[in-house]
Amino acid sequence: MMTQVHDVYPTRLEDKRAAFERLDPVVWSDEPARSKGPLSRDQVDFYERNGYLFFDSFFSPEEVKPFLDDLEDYGQDPNLKSRDQVIIEPYADEIRSIFGIHELSPRFDRLTRDPRLLGMARQLLDSDVYIHQSRINYKPGFTGNGFNWHSDFETWHSEDGMPRMRCFSLSILLTENNQYNGPLMLLPGSHRWFVPTHGRTPEENWKASLKNQTLGVPAADNLQAMSENAGLVSPTGPAGSVILFECNTLHASANNLSPWPRSNLFFVYNSVENRLEAPYCGTRPRPEFIATRSSVRPLQPVTNPTTVRVAEPA
Amino acid sequence: MMTQVHDVYPTRLEDKRAAFERLDPVVWSDEPARSKGPLSRDQVDFYERNGYLFFDSFFSPEEVKPFLDDLEDYGQDPNLKSRDQVIIEPYADEIRSIFGIHELSPRFDRLTRDPRLLGMARQLLDSDVYIHQSRINYKPGFTGNGFNWHSDFETWHSEDGMPRMRCFSLSILLTENNQYNGPLMLLPGSHRWFVPTHGRTPEENWKASLKNQTLGVPAADNLQAMSENAGLVSPTGPAGSVILFECNTLHASANNLSPWPRSNLFFVYNSVENRLEAPYCGTRPRPEFIATRSSVRPLQPVTNPTTVRVAEPA
Repeated sequence: MMTQVHDVYPTRLEDKRAAFERLDPVVWSDEPARSKGPLSRDQVDFYERNGYLFFDSFFSPEEVKPFLDDLEDYGQDPNLKSRDQVIIEPYADEIRSIFGIHELSPRFDRLTRDPRLLGMARQLLDSDVYIHQSRINYKPGFTGNGFNWHSDFETWHSEDGMPRMRCFSLSILLTENNQYNGPLMLLPGSHRWFVPTHGRTPEENWKASLKNQTLGVPAADNLQAMSENAGLVSPTGPAGSVILFECNTLHASANNLSPWPRSNLFFVYNSVENRLEAPYCGTRPRPEFIATRSSVRPLQPVTNPTTVRVAEPA
Repeated sequence: MMTQVHDVYPTRLEDKRAAFERLDPVVWSDEPARSKGPLSRDQVDFYERNGYLFFDSFFSPEEVKPFLDDLEDYGQDPNLKSRDQVIIEPYADEIRSIFGIHELSPRFDRLTRDPRLLGMARQLLDSDVYIHQSRINYKPGFTGNGFNWHSDFETWHSEDGMPRMRCFSLSILLTENNQYNGPLMLLPGSHRWFVPTHGRTPEENWKASLKNQTLGVPAADNLQAMSENAGLVSPTGPAGSVILFECNTLHASANNLSPWPRSNLFFVYNSVENRLEAPYCGTRPRPEFIATRSSVRPLQPVTNPTTVRVAEPA
């Protein structure tokens, strides 16, 4: 017997539905936790209002260099390239994304547990957190294709069964992001609205959507209306800078025609109170490397997260 | 009997050839004509060195508004859309470009004969000039596709039979060009090199290339090497601003994911001493609306070029 689930964020339907105000807080903690840090009161207010924060040079270039070196090594590894968790560019034989990077590499795993990052997560989401998804987007020079407008939550809700908006992404810039190499564009304030998208989701949609997204893209009139308030923003800065954005903030990025790769690391922090259910769009769950379903472990901070301890010889 | 033509700028061949220094001057006039104006000495020197000039707000927004209105009317005209000179976007049913715009519209024709623009043309090319090509690129919001790296001269030489580099493009911004809507990117200094590209040109290549260019795109290592000197530039500014760039300056632009159309008008001024010959790549000549071959008329300046005289009733 089918269980009838009431879906508070219906999307991917055959009829077109209007956008509506989100049902969840943006900042989950109340005072005094809200003002406890590490984010300042202004930063928390800015995030609540705009749906993102930018930290220029959060890490030093020296700290992120080993991650970029790893990424280049992965790019040369022919065995890796054939795995499902590695997505190839639609118009070039180059790596577009590697998913589940924190499971592949102890170095990346340790970085997810940086005490400052976990502190921000606790302040904003008011609970322990775990990694819902991790990935690298390579966006190689000349051939890197862009990403169409979308809310991550809209996908994670419909295709992964994430119940509520209690989650954010943290993007760590591994190369300089500048105006030429297809930096992230955000629609400030868009996180306050849920924009249902149109069209049924087929099984294994991710095999197409992670190359070139068409389903789950808001209609042009919705995007137009939301851009009339605050326009667009596109944080740029050196390697080591960090962009934190709410799971429902609409974002996109253009293709990279510059000679410079735009390689960014993404960690998605989800509240342990917001674990995945069955996908709301009725498809089978996506693979574990795209959406953590079984191995939910509250993250514990580590000291010196960007310093890898060399394993002792046996 | 075939006539053997010595081609000083060989390209579109089956073997890969190295880039070499251009054989033509960038600024064709000598003193005193070179310093006669309307461009200042600094502007002429800058153009010679970098291959482009930018004029913020050259025209006022009021002056260019009627051109934008015309362009919007053309976009609504179903008869126009079916013509060969109208190019449709590769991924959307929207107009990408209209060619031969100065032949379609007396308003655009008059604008080509702005005395200030003709003065620049005479100063840089040292002769009378005519319009080799005119077009509008619409680049609509959300769906406007980009343009891959290319030298216009490389195409005009191989596919149209333009003998030498004695020509430039003038792009008039009809909408604001900003960092979000896929502005023109230029490779400063690239005009000083001829970069042969690789691969034979098929007949009617323009039907594909004007939607999405693949032939005539320099190799990544050439682009990389040339960007190491002066990086990239991307002039942005309000409607009415003007970008002038040499026919051999490498340029490109990303797709437009913003809500704002990036609609620019292009006039290509060629020296009357540089009239087209047979295409060097051996194909049939492209249509007259892409490359003026028969109706070469030295342009005569008009007064008040942005003011259209209303035709008198018969």
